[in-house]
Amino acid sequence: MSRLTLALDVMGGDFGPRVTIPAALIALEKYPNLSFLFFGDQSQSSTYISRFSTAYRSRIQFIHTDNAIEMDMPFVQALRQSKQSSMRLAIEAVAKGKAQACISGGNTGALMGLAKLLIQPLPSIARPALTSLIPTMNGQSTVMLDLGANVEVSSELLLQFAEMGNIFAKKMLNLTAPRINLLNIGTENNKGTTVLKTAHQNLKLRQDLNYQGFIESDKLTNHCADVIVCDGFSGNIALKALEGVAKNILALLFKKSSEEFGLCTKIKRLALRMLLYRYYRKLQQINPDRHNGATLLGLSSVVVKSHGGANIRAFYYAIEYAISQIEHQIPQQIELGLQHLMQK
Amino acid sequence: MSRLTLALDVMGGDFGPRVTIPAALIALEKYPNLSFLFFGDQSQSSTYISRFSTAYRSRIQFIHTDNAIEMDMPFVQALRQSKQSSMRLAIEAVAKGKAQACISGGNTGALMGLAKLLIQPLPSIARPALTSLIPTMNGQSTVMLDLGANVEVSSELLLQFAEMGNIFAKKMLNLTAPRINLLNIGTENNKGTTVLKTAHQNLKLRQDLNYQGFIESDKLTNHCADVIVCDGFSGNIALKALEGVAKNILALLFKKSSEEFGLCTKIKRLALRMLLYRYYRKLQQINPDRHNGATLLGLSSVVVKSHGGANIRAFYYAIEYAISQIEHQIPQQIELGLQHLMQK
Repeated sequence: MSRLTLALDVMGGDFGPRVTIPAALIALEKYPNLSFLFFGDQSQSSTYISRFSTAYRSRIQFIHTDNAIEMDMPFVQALRQSKQSSMRLAIEAVAKGKAQACISGGNTGALMGLAKLLIQPLPSIARPALTSLIPTMNGQSTVMLDLGANVEVSSELLLQFAEMGNIFAKKMLNLTAPRINLLNIGTENNKGTTVLKTAHQNLKLRQDLNYQGFIESDKLTNHCADVIVCDGFSGNIALKALEGVAKNILALLFKKSSEEFGLCTKIKRLALRMLLYRYYRKLQQINPDRHNGATLLGLSSVVVKSHGGANIRAFYYAIEYAISQIEHQIPQQIELGLQHLMQK
Repeated sequence: MSRLTLALDVMGGDFGPRVTIPAALIALEKYPNLSFLFFGDQSQSSTYISRFSTAYRSRIQFIHTDNAIEMDMPFVQALRQSKQSSMRLAIEAVAKGKAQACISGGNTGALMGLAKLLIQPLPSIARPALTSLIPTMNGQSTVMLDLGANVEVSSELLLQFAEMGNIFAKKMLNLTAPRINLLNIGTENNKGTTVLKTAHQNLKLRQDLNYQGFIESDKLTNHCADVIVCDGFSGNIALKALEGVAKNILALLFKKSSEEFGLCTKIKRLALRMLLYRYYRKLQQINPDRHNGATLLGLSSVVVKSHGGANIRAFYYAIEYAISQIEHQIPQQIELGLQHLMQK
């Protein structure tokens, strides 16, 4: 097993070191070949690092910085103030080859902007796309892109997203001919925007892609497609709608409500959990926490964005998502695949 | 109570008369002042009508037609073949003043197209918007528009949607100053498309509207807004994503699975239901079936689109949605409100 080094923006996300460092510890336990470069405020982090055994501590290197990009800061302002920030330093570590991937739960706009600025995009790629694995009801996953990197797209760009998604699904989901669909508000040829209709016609001509046609967003979790292609605006809208409802329903069923203290309620909840065990397991499959992490596909290195509100478990999944992409050599595979297409 | 007459496209939806006629019967039972004009194939409908008592039968008038618009037919083709179809006849009945509203579960594109063609739009309205009440986790509702009538919009159109949604929410939800939000992929000023950013700036200047800013789609069911304004493409994507997940999770928990026959399983399910009763009631609140029906807001009469896949209960809710709009005189209120704005 070759060595893995990840650059971690310790300060990113709503909870900073309180979530990112314990999540990194889980990863260190699970992957013996893994090391971390931590970027962040050392005084805020020391409590959490002090819980590491010496063996684990030897596998992390802490690079202290006072500066962190705020979660809600607009991109332009964030960029201006990004010097010496934990996020920028983490991305720079990847750009300089000191780490193979970077993970951050921080400001999405800033992360995408800095990544595009500092890390070489792949030569064949017009614009990178934010890509995620969407959990489906049957416990499988669907690749979805773009989820917010490109608010407006051309039909050519959608085609390239389909090509990237195809390669990503082949490697990450181990598929031979991933089923590709375009997200639309209907399945008939005449539905949607002009851009979508053109992309649809062009994709139908592509014999190297297993293009199935349009898909509507009520089928996102039904595993009808292996790759769902869309512009960054609708992708973001669809994904967040899905996550919002799934989280709300899970909370309704399983939250530890502070309003209810009675013994009767506790027994009822316990009984409920026991009875619901099988269903709970199934619901877990569509729990967005378990599929946390979006990657900026099309860059020459792996950059993973975790949810800002991720808990330790969810942030760990984002780390795992980065490791899996390194192991599958995703950037290299995408470049190879697209070069091959161009030569045809 | 004044008399109410509704025009019903009996053939619309995936199940036609099997769903639409029993749903109409529930409405007849509930509203003593209600009559129906049924449009559809009489031979396919007679079985269901024969179950009506004579008293109820006297409150329906059946207009037979052989022609029905197919669910998947593209709009242009549907329009060409729409003559003497159940849907067109139902809309014409409203246009001619024979009924106060029309309800159909048929082809959405055809229904919107025919409604816009045959029913006068309100003088102050640029383009009608498909509008629905979205169920929220706390058992309340949020008005959302546009849900698919306008795939591409201008910032001026979004402003008019906000004005229409404001009046709709005041009347239908009995609110004094509905909280209005624009759907976007972030809440900062610089997020989203140019159209959205312009609409956001213009709405901020409107002192007559309780505009709150952007909202993301993971908050759709959290009742943070009373009116959510968006273009028809993203609205449709968001709503269907929400419905798809909600339906999938409800099915997971409460479906009568054909795979499981064992007594043990049945007892377990029964126990589960008893224990889950309170949660089930809450989940019911976000069940899309209970909030079925989208209306084409901005026309001079009420036209309601039911889901194609609606069951009897859900289709009944679409009928109720139409009745409620007639009782609140929604078209008249919107015209009054917009005229008032223009005079200012």
